[in-house]
Amino acid sequence: MTLNSKTRQIEIQNPDGSKFLIGAGDCTVIAGPCSVESKEIFLETAQTVKSSGASILRGGLHKLRTSPDAFQGLGRDAYRLAQEVKEELGLPFITEITDPRQVEELSDLADLFQVGSRNMYNYALLSELGKTSKPILLKRAFSATVDEWIGAARYIEKEGNSQIILCERGIRTFDRTLRNTLDLGAVAYLKAETDYPVFVDPSHACGRRDLVIPLAKAAQAVGADGIMIEAHPNPDEALSDGPQSLTLSQLKDLMQAILLS
Amino acid sequence: MTLNSKTRQIEIQNPDGSKFLIGAGDCTVIAGPCSVESKEIFLETAQTVKSSGASILRGGLHKLRTSPDAFQGLGRDAYRLAQEVKEELGLPFITEITDPRQVEELSDLADLFQVGSRNMYNYALLSELGKTSKPILLKRAFSATVDEWIGAARYIEKEGNSQIILCERGIRTFDRTLRNTLDLGAVAYLKAETDYPVFVDPSHACGRRDLVIPLAKAAQAVGADGIMIEAHPNPDEALSDGPQSLTLSQLKDLMQAILLS
Amino acid sequence: MTLNSKTRQIEIQNPDGSKFLIGAGDCTVIAGPCSVESKEIFLETAQTVKSSGASILRGGLHKLRTSPDAFQGLGRDAYRLAQEVKEELGLPFITEITDPRQVEELSDLADLFQVGSRNMYNYALLSELGKTSKPILLKRAFSATVDEWIGAARYIEKEGNSQIILCERGIRTFDRTLRNTLDLGAVAYLKAETDYPVFVDPSHACGRRDLVIPLAKAAQAVGADGIMIEAHPNPDEALSDGPQSLTLSQLKDLMQAILLS
Amino acid sequence: MTLNSKTRQIEIQNPDGSKFLIGAGDCTVIAGPCSVESKEIFLETAQTVKSSGASILRGGLHKLRTSPDAFQGLGRDAYRLAQEVKEELGLPFITEITDPRQVEELSDLADLFQVGSRNMYNYALLSELGKTSKPILLKRAFSATVDEWIGAARYIEKEGNSQIILCERGIRTFDRTLRNTLDLGAVAYLKAETDYPVFVDPSHACGRRDLVIPLAKAAQAVGADGIMIEAHPNPDEALSDGPQSLTLSQLKDLMQAILLS
Repeated sequence: MTLNSKTRQIEIQNPDGSKFLIGAGDCTVIAGPCSVESKEIFLETAQTVKSSGASILRGGLHKLRTSPDAFQGLGRDAYRLAQEVKEELGLPFITEITDPRQVEELSDLADLFQVGSRNMYNYALLSELGKTSKPILLKRAFSATVDEWIGAARYIEKEGNSQIILCERGIRTFDRTLRNTLDLGAVAYLKAETDYPVFVDPSHACGRRDLVIPLAKAAQAVGADGIMIEAHPNPDEALSDGPQSLTLSQLKDLMQAILLS
Repeated sequence: MTLNSKTRQIEIQNPDGSKFLIGAGDCTVIAGPCSVESKEIFLETAQTVKSSGASILRGGLHKLRTSPDAFQGLGRDAYRLAQEVKEELGLPFITEITDPRQVEELSDLADLFQVGSRNMYNYALLSELGKTSKPILLKRAFSATVDEWIGAARYIEKEGNSQIILCERGIRTFDRTLRNTLDLGAVAYLKAETDYPVFVDPSHACGRRDLVIPLAKAAQAVGADGIMIEAHPNPDEALSDGPQSLTLSQLKDLMQAILLS
Repeated sequence: MTLNSKTRQIEIQNPDGSKFLIGAGDCTVIAGPCSVESKEIFLETAQTVKSSGASILRGGLHKLRTSPDAFQGLGRDAYRLAQEVKEELGLPFITEITDPRQVEELSDLADLFQVGSRNMYNYALLSELGKTSKPILLKRAFSATVDEWIGAARYIEKEGNSQIILCERGIRTFDRTLRNTLDLGAVAYLKAETDYPVFVDPSHACGRRDLVIPLAKAAQAVGADGIMIEAHPNPDEALSDGPQSLTLSQLKDLMQAILLS
Repeated sequence: MTLNSKTRQIEIQNPDGSKFLIGAGDCTVIAGPCSVESKEIFLETAQTVKSSGASILRGGLHKLRTSPDAFQGLGRDAYRLAQEVKEELGLPFITEITDPRQVEELSDLADLFQVGSRNMYNYALLSELGKTSKPILLKRAFSATVDEWIGAARYIEKEGNSQIILCERGIRTFDRTLRNTLDLGAVAYLKAETDYPVFVDPSHACGRRDLVIPLAKAAQAVGADGIMIEAHPNPDEALSDGPQSLTLSQLKDLMQAILLS
């Protein structure tokens, strides 16, 4: 990837105080399970995230699901568990925030906040995040035009926080062969027209673990500043998003493919 | 319209204590300006809403706009003004709620709460509304499948509130000839398969005031339990949604067309 | 429906030489089976088409199906059969044309030519039809913008034939709850902005026979000049489009609803 | 790219009788102008196509345009000119066929036939092409599901011709930021689930020449068997598709990027 000199660089701090930059030319990988399910599973996943060379650990605590009866994440019960794993591995941690009232309670645990697709238009939440000093990974709503996505970013910026990473994760179209349609054209467009670092989440886009690696390579080739991946020690038993989660072995393969490009 | 005996009926209370039912066979009309802009404009509109035979007054206080720099509504500054107009006319009032922290402050003013399209997936907000005893008009997100829309309603119901009205307002498709594509097939489907009262908002769907009346008639013909209309004394000077707002004279024509069918 | 004085009127000739107009204010109904399957079934359907008050008989001879292994229609083998039924009932006949080389062979049988959704962009076919003197019912491609649809009509007009009826039959969107999304906003738009007579095909739009009548009523209410309906004596055994075909009893109910409005 | 051992290989013959394979592991590039406009322009473009290392020359003779008044290609008047350039450069030639009646007249000139997006559902044309012995590049309709696309290929195969290359060129979605949405997920899916060689046309997908190279690299990275590119010596004066045509200098850059990967 050519270094795009005008990309807005975002500094991420590791638990040990060392720092690295997003948007400086490398393809940064965020990986981890869809949801934090137990200490054992989260720790095992995080160990592979670390050893394979990924830079940021992800793990969902508050999940948004179409049905209120589906698994909604462990919520506050897992904050301590997540903190322990994060510290043990020495990786910065990102988790999704779903309510403006969670900002304070998550501020020790989360090094970056993720805004999920369903909340991209939740301007009350975005404004609240604009008052923090944490980097925000803002996923595109599955039906958002690029202009609306940039508009959402501006709700955060308007309150003073310009550390924003945009994350393409597939849009909703007439074709349901795969879970969503990954829009790499939007990534190319954003890299040409804006200074935001742009990430790609191929896992949610395709919904099938066997297609995650080729799409991740395509994302890197088009110029993405990073990718976000779901992985699980035993995806077929995951409580959410199992079909699209890589095995830990596949996560290592993915990291090899990304690091060698 | 044939009375669909299984539609869930929702009782609305007028300021004078009298009541009427939504979902009992008549086509209920909600009308008013997109935003409350001033007492004069709101009062003039409300008077025509009342005199033309519409049943519920609408008026936006907190507006969600793609850009943070666009007019965001008068917010709390207009609560008192809206209360005065509502009482003067004796009409129940509906307004959009955009943040779970607004529930309490709006509970005296709003007789019904409206959830806008951008917040249909805001489950924190929906759960908060499920704890109230007010009817909720739940607009379809412009990219929501019917199943996701019903899922959103169930987040409200799960907390104990089953007074839910679904409101179709146009979906986002490849064709941008009009602002959105009004999906009356979804209305027919919901009337056949669920017991929710279903309203239609033709104003947002088409974005052009000259097409609002034919689409309102179509909504009534397909079996909608009500329609929601934007009107303004001088639409070309409205601070939001002017192109799709009916003039007050057109609002009277619309009410004639609906009441005569 | 209000007579839209500027609608382009199209004269249809009955087999007995009498004539009637499309676009003159009434809602014209075209009905018949998806495919001509046998003389008995086609005749029985046609008798109800006639007795219930519909004006034009439809019946597919050349069918376009996603798979080449699906039933493709009886083709030329059924031309004589269709001719006999048409003459016996005294109804004008419309059938779909799928190849420019069919124009000549179908010119005795067909009183109107139908262009299906899959062929809306088949400009070679449209140009060939522009050289005939028959009315053309041009269905919207399920992904066509309104401008592209009008562009297709202009390919016909450019060769000299202005007897064009546009037919909305549902577009393809992210929501697959129903077979397609019926776009009645486009009908309202076309009635406001062009002089084409506009028909609506609710059968293909919804794909479910229980929703055809409410959508047909909505089409009439929005101002459509006519509707096109599939019906079959025994829909569950139809060789194509059974789920959306009305029974003959439902066809009578539909005609009552349309004629009484 | 890893050699996918099960990809159906297609033999292409150069004018000098030598041959090469599509689907054998290399990324094959087809390049040339959208339309053949004049001998000078076509020859100049073809020389760069050849010298830069692309394998197949493209050039439109019969163009399909939304309006019948737009430039429709030079048609038969340019057959001889195209033949001369093709022979002078020694490159196999591909051109779009738009009418089943063109098969015979184009059979000397065209080494491969291209079916454009608008004709993917034109089964009369596909069946006619199935009777030839030429490779067919079948573009996806901008609204076709993957299943419909495969169904279209099967119309060709049913008549005996299995030399089919599928070409993704962007689908139509709600987002019109770019001309179309390039669906590289569909490419990954087809490579995993079928044996068709799959090409990608980034030019039509994005509609902007500055985004063609990053999207071509992404196509190669996801595993495409080839790419199809529009180029022109002076794109701003091209009679069709100028904004998305590469300059000849950009075509050389693209070939460098592809050949070095």
